[in-house]
Amino acid sequence: MDSAKTTRRTVLAGVAAAAAFGLGTGTAQAETKGPKIGILLYDGFSLLDPTGPAEVLARLPGATVTMIAQERGPVRTDTRDVAVLAERSVAEVHRLDVLLVPGAGNRGTVAAMENPVLLDWIRRIHRHTTWTTSVCTGSLILGAAGLLRERATTYWASADYLEKTFGVRYVPERYVQVGKVVTAAGVSAGIDLAFHLASLLAGEEIARGIQLAVEYDPQPPFDSGDAAAASPELKALALKLLAESQV
Amino acid sequence: MDSAKTTRRTVLAGVAAAAAFGLGTGTAQAETKGPKIGILLYDGFSLLDPTGPAEVLARLPGATVTMIAQERGPVRTDTRDVAVLAERSVAEVHRLDVLLVPGAGNRGTVAAMENPVLLDWIRRIHRHTTWTTSVCTGSLILGAAGLLRERATTYWASADYLEKTFGVRYVPERYVQVGKVVTAAGVSAGIDLAFHLASLLAGEEIARGIQLAVEYDPQPPFDSGDAAAASPELKALALKLLAESQV
Repeated sequence: MDSAKTTRRTVLAGVAAAAAFGLGTGTAQAETKGPKIGILLYDGFSLLDPTGPAEVLARLPGATVTMIAQERGPVRTDTRDVAVLAERSVAEVHRLDVLLVPGAGNRGTVAAMENPVLLDWIRRIHRHTTWTTSVCTGSLILGAAGLLRERATTYWASADYLEKTFGVRYVPERYVQVGKVVTAAGVSAGIDLAFHLASLLAGEEIARGIQLAVEYDPQPPFDSGDAAAASPELKALALKLLAESQV
Repeated sequence: MDSAKTTRRTVLAGVAAAAAFGLGTGTAQAETKGPKIGILLYDGFSLLDPTGPAEVLARLPGATVTMIAQERGPVRTDTRDVAVLAERSVAEVHRLDVLLVPGAGNRGTVAAMENPVLLDWIRRIHRHTTWTTSVCTGSLILGAAGLLRERATTYWASADYLEKTFGVRYVPERYVQVGKVVTAAGVSAGIDLAFHLASLLAGEEIARGIQLAVEYDPQPPFDSGDAAAASPELKALALKLLAESQV
């Protein structure tokens, strides 16, 4: 017990907290034993698509989570309100254990689907991944890269497009696993996907530990998140709100 | 139907999609009729705390969401993996309709609680807000600024600290509203808070529309997110995973 430790405030209590939150922890990031997780950012992505999974997957023992884009630097969301820093360019990243491709509004999704640099990189990385994953319309980008087979999920409003364009069956689940490709439904479904991935990568006990670590005990105040149960009016409102918030 | 519209791909279908995703939308961001929402970033924040609410609140009609920090520029998360850009310094922001203070690991939380520049700014902004809100250990920062009364929530492992330090009762709900101060539980609870705020700011119908827009129909693969139901072993594991992922 050195003095730095004893004079330092600890705002988190519990069985392991005193030891856990002392100085000198946090060396896990420097290790390379855990999974290398890469998230592809591109202009117009939806903020929660990469950040929900990153919050969860960064808690895996020894894991590194890297935000990657065509070029290093800030990448702006669909609403233009927020920018997340890409720490690496695609040219700098050659191997990943997990690739995650987030979704975007129409503009961002279409631009990514038509970007040969991104599609080539996705295909190249996919060869050696353990899991190749997507959130929301990210599955359309995986489709454009030729990686979808049989079944997939995507944003509810893109289900028809997915089926017609890529000849796969849309499955309205939170996430759908076909071989090593795991697609998630819209935006917030990336969090559910991330816990599934956590259990695949590190076992169910660790996944449950992370669930408690981020207090993921969701209690939405309303019950309007399921497109299958939504009225045409609510669907129209949802798409209007999206369109008007996006640039 | 101009040619730019008809040649442009539309990957999202539905009642309003054709109109909603055409060119020339997205003017809402330029308007100032909606709520001005500010999120305070500081070194070591937990990524989902600000980004979950930002995803939801940015869909409110006419809303602006601004990431704010002591200085403009990239602000790094507790795991050091990810940086979000602060678009404004606290010195540049004088009025907000909604202030949201995210949580962090022990190091980041304590540093923010001891930072007079941030605490003074929070107090100053709070005078004119409609809602002053927090996620996770962000409530401890509101406490350090002198803004907590009677009841609040926080990260489960900080409940004792909250009660002893600020003399308020810890309520284990996803969010707790006392006057215009609304505190949320750990990390992912910020999303539930955001839907509550959305309904307060724009009404329940809009909040439900946003819920469908981000397909928030959570289905965690495990049921370990509630600290009240967790074993001491799982709590210890959760805190260990947090500590080892944080720097």
